[in-house]
Amino acid sequence: MDWIFQAPAQPDWRLFEIAAARQAQLTKPPGSLGVLEESAVRLAALQRRERPSVERVWISVFAADHGIAEAGVSAFPQVVTQEMVKNFAAGGAAVNVLARALGADFEVVDVGLVAPVDVPGVVNCRAGSGTASFLTAPAMSVEQLAVALSAGRDAVARALTADAELFVGGEMGIANTASASALAAARLGLPAADLTGAGTGLSPGQIDRKAAVIEQALALHREALNSPLAMLQILGGFEIAALTGAYLAAAQQGLPVVVDGFISGVAALLAAALCPGCADWLFFGHRSAEKGHVLVLEALHARPLLALDLRLGEASGALMAIPVLQMACRLHNEMATFAQAGVSTA
Amino acid sequence: MDWIFQAPAQPDWRLFEIAAARQAQLTKPPGSLGVLEESAVRLAALQRRERPSVERVWISVFAADHGIAEAGVSAFPQVVTQEMVKNFAAGGAAVNVLARALGADFEVVDVGLVAPVDVPGVVNCRAGSGTASFLTAPAMSVEQLAVALSAGRDAVARALTADAELFVGGEMGIANTASASALAAARLGLPAADLTGAGTGLSPGQIDRKAAVIEQALALHREALNSPLAMLQILGGFEIAALTGAYLAAAQQGLPVVVDGFISGVAALLAAALCPGCADWLFFGHRSAEKGHVLVLEALHARPLLALDLRLGEASGALMAIPVLQMACRLHNEMATFAQAGVSTA
Repeated sequence: MDWIFQAPAQPDWRLFEIAAARQAQLTKPPGSLGVLEESAVRLAALQRRERPSVERVWISVFAADHGIAEAGVSAFPQVVTQEMVKNFAAGGAAVNVLARALGADFEVVDVGLVAPVDVPGVVNCRAGSGTASFLTAPAMSVEQLAVALSAGRDAVARALTADAELFVGGEMGIANTASASALAAARLGLPAADLTGAGTGLSPGQIDRKAAVIEQALALHREALNSPLAMLQILGGFEIAALTGAYLAAAQQGLPVVVDGFISGVAALLAAALCPGCADWLFFGHRSAEKGHVLVLEALHARPLLALDLRLGEASGALMAIPVLQMACRLHNEMATFAQAGVSTA
Repeated sequence: MDWIFQAPAQPDWRLFEIAAARQAQLTKPPGSLGVLEESAVRLAALQRRERPSVERVWISVFAADHGIAEAGVSAFPQVVTQEMVKNFAAGGAAVNVLARALGADFEVVDVGLVAPVDVPGVVNCRAGSGTASFLTAPAMSVEQLAVALSAGRDAVARALTADAELFVGGEMGIANTASASALAAARLGLPAADLTGAGTGLSPGQIDRKAAVIEQALALHREALNSPLAMLQILGGFEIAALTGAYLAAAQQGLPVVVDGFISGVAALLAAALCPGCADWLFFGHRSAEKGHVLVLEALHARPLLALDLRLGEASGALMAIPVLQMACRLHNEMATFAQAGVSTA
């Protein structure tokens, strides 16, 4: 797993200054395009070009099953993971609709369903047949963790082969908010209850029980939870590790990323813990309605682009934010300057 | 001006129920698409169809000059209004870039510049050569108000002729935040200071002076400011009245609207005061960085779709929100149901 410790690519801060100077010349009051100006200038530095562009978008949705599902921490049965993978392959899920709307490349990656699905179009990077329940044992072996992290790196490699300008990761896995909440609680050193929410639709009583299950697991593994990698191995899901690997690889390769919601945010938290410079490459698409997300975003010093009360995963919130970044680039590239338009300045 | 009191069209609440029932069948946890679900269901009721669509967008930017500019309440000189109208006509402004990105129809309407601009492509609906300074006199006559309101109605008529599915109004007019702040203070019964912000970029001291100017005007006209129409006539701008007229006409004609930022929000506040049912037809694109906007949104019980620290006007914030509504519709229309995809429910 040595690759995960390679240094991230360096943004070009000279182009940041050049782009900021251009923004000051466009026909609008300085600063009046707010987050759009910041985003365009940052993308210029990341992409090392005066005119940034994020028209070509790559989406990898990582799917896996979770042993902790047997503890009754999800509103949906475990079989839904594989059913939804088939739905992704058939083009019927939310992420498919959004991918089509954006003209984005889309793939779904099996990082470890309970059993492989027999449909075309699913990328096979299986690290196992679901994780073990972290209530009784580490969720995965070190070897499985390595496979799952590499699944993310491989997805980024495919994105680069397709000339993608932006990478978006998504996830699907019944019970994976339980895994993400456990990881966030371990990483942030906070009680599970602070980071445990409704997931796909638990009642308040069920949320309390889910938090208690996570707290019990944190107590069981407390001594072993001594590094970001140990946390991923003991509490993780294969798809969460794949997202962490993807974010690290994207930063190493210099490919900007839009992070989705709570689960993806936890993967980003672990990526940033493993490699702080990684965070330069991450945009945060939205603030999810899932309870723990605000704390995760705060820990990342992240300001999400949107807040639409989404809590679906599948990359959906990240994809909703893509037009914001695309329009930020187009405004930066296409607006007339004061001089070009003959408009007086303040 | 009798037309402004005609009743708005009625949304079809039966289609609201049908659309909500469809949302519950789509392959996602119920409610997990948050604002997108609410938006699609509401659009179904407004458009009276099971599958809403807002792909065809019409944008009218109303431009006018303001006598109050002579009081030094703007960071930019008054000539910028006409210079920016030329920029709109030439396609170099932010709104032009966004209109192209959305494939939207765009027009700029002169509702009363100090002098007409001699460029093709500007729609002439002039109510006067700029308003009078409301610091000494009513900004416009009743006759001028009628012309300005009609300019908005006429723009909606053109949008409908073009088969638009969504109407977006924008504004341009140096010093028009001073007019909007005065209108909001009068309508909400609040001190001018609570509603007065930086506009295109005033310093804190300049903002205080701008608020004092507005407070002085409010004192001068207090007795006459006894109805929404009187407020528009005394404190308004031609372009603000045009936006009010456009919102009223769109509601009467059953055409959904996306409202832009602070100035447009004040026009919407007055439209809702003239005709409460009008508000059914309004979506709010964003929360502007301009100080008074939050209070205006609260008075309208409005939840804006975005909050990107924009403060440009020109319809820019409304246009940034269009992809959110378009994607909400596409998700509603194109996602597979649980039954279609063979996915288990909770």
